[in-house]
Amino acid sequence: MARPIYIAIAAVTLDGKIAKTKSHMSTWTSKEDKLFMRALLNKCDAIIVGNNTYKTAIKPLSKRNCIVLSRSANKLISKSSGLTRGVYSPPFKGGARGGYKPRLEYCNPKKSDLKKLIRDRGYKRIAILGGAQTYAYCLKNNLLDELYLTIEPIVFGKGINLFESRKFLEQKFKLDSIKKLNRQGSLLLHYKK
Amino acid sequence: MARPIYIAIAAVTLDGKIAKTKSHMSTWTSKEDKLFMRALLNKCDAIIVGNNTYKTAIKPLSKRNCIVLSRSANKLISKSSGLTRGVYSPPFKGGARGGYKPRLEYCNPKKSDLKKLIRDRGYKRIAILGGAQTYAYCLKNNLLDELYLTIEPIVFGKGINLFESRKFLEQKFKLDSIKKLNRQGSLLLHYKK
Repeated sequence: MARPIYIAIAAVTLDGKIAKTKSHMSTWTSKEDKLFMRALLNKCDAIIVGNNTYKTAIKPLSKRNCIVLSRSANKLISKSSGLTRGVYSPPFKGGARGGYKPRLEYCNPKKSDLKKLIRDRGYKRIAILGGAQTYAYCLKNNLLDELYLTIEPIVFGKGINLFESRKFLEQKFKLDSIKKLNRQGSLLLHYKK
Repeated sequence: MARPIYIAIAAVTLDGKIAKTKSHMSTWTSKEDKLFMRALLNKCDAIIVGNNTYKTAIKPLSKRNCIVLSRSANKLISKSSGLTRGVYSPPFKGGARGGYKPRLEYCNPKKSDLKKLIRDRGYKRIAILGGAQTYAYCLKNNLLDELYLTIEPIVFGKGINLFESRKFLEQKFKLDSIKKLNRQGSLLLHYKK
């Protein structure tokens, strides 16, 4: 079986911030970025997201298969129902519409095997939606193959960085494509490892 | 007299870092970025640079008119000689070659009037070379009209941010142009206020 592909999606300011504070919602990103993100999520089987980020976007995320990374999950918690455990859920185009029930799972990767979970579920394309600790965890653990980075033409001056890490995590990428999303100059960059 | 133009030049990683540590020299940036920077500096009359950054690049910077921002400068210190005070030095193409002596001045902007100094010197185009505190000072004090941001396709994971500020400094920009500098995908972005 082919290895799953892990695709991080992030919007940053010119100064590399993903938010002003932990509870800051992504109201500051362009509508073009939001449209792009939704289209990309439609092509993914599941989302990896941190608990804080999940809470800031429960409504849109509850329509999709989510693995929520959480330090407080002592064991794997599966909150959704109506799906046989271990059965592959195909990519979904309409979320909860059409009777489809997405799967919500809480996983502490220090206590449960995240890679095995993804293998068991049969997920092939996984979107990583942040926040900073989740992006850093994935980068560090070889769970970040591609990065879609939208650079919004705004500066915050301070805030939450793309990666939150105590150690250096030096890694090289290669720019695959560039797309200007609007007149103001929101820029969508696609990088691969 | 037209207001001087302030142009910040910075190279950042994908995660918005300008260096790993305060003493980290810019050995990690692409040669294309260095060539671009040199060409742009040749079109500027003077450089504003922080004391730490100046120390990491004394040799190339000593060929150019520099205003070094330093908290320890109690009054304006002019270290270069051979130039009549207050006389305009035209843009220079070859640095110290040809008998031209660049002007080196240390300024604490809390104690000396930086804008008046630049007016007195007749500088028309000023390049801001960082580091993080200097970029933030200029942004905060309306001394940052344009930003040339080179995004190198590398991640550090942690390090020095583009701006170092205790307060939010939210400001919008407009993307003016995009240039891919090399095959790996170093990207030169030009933003204006």
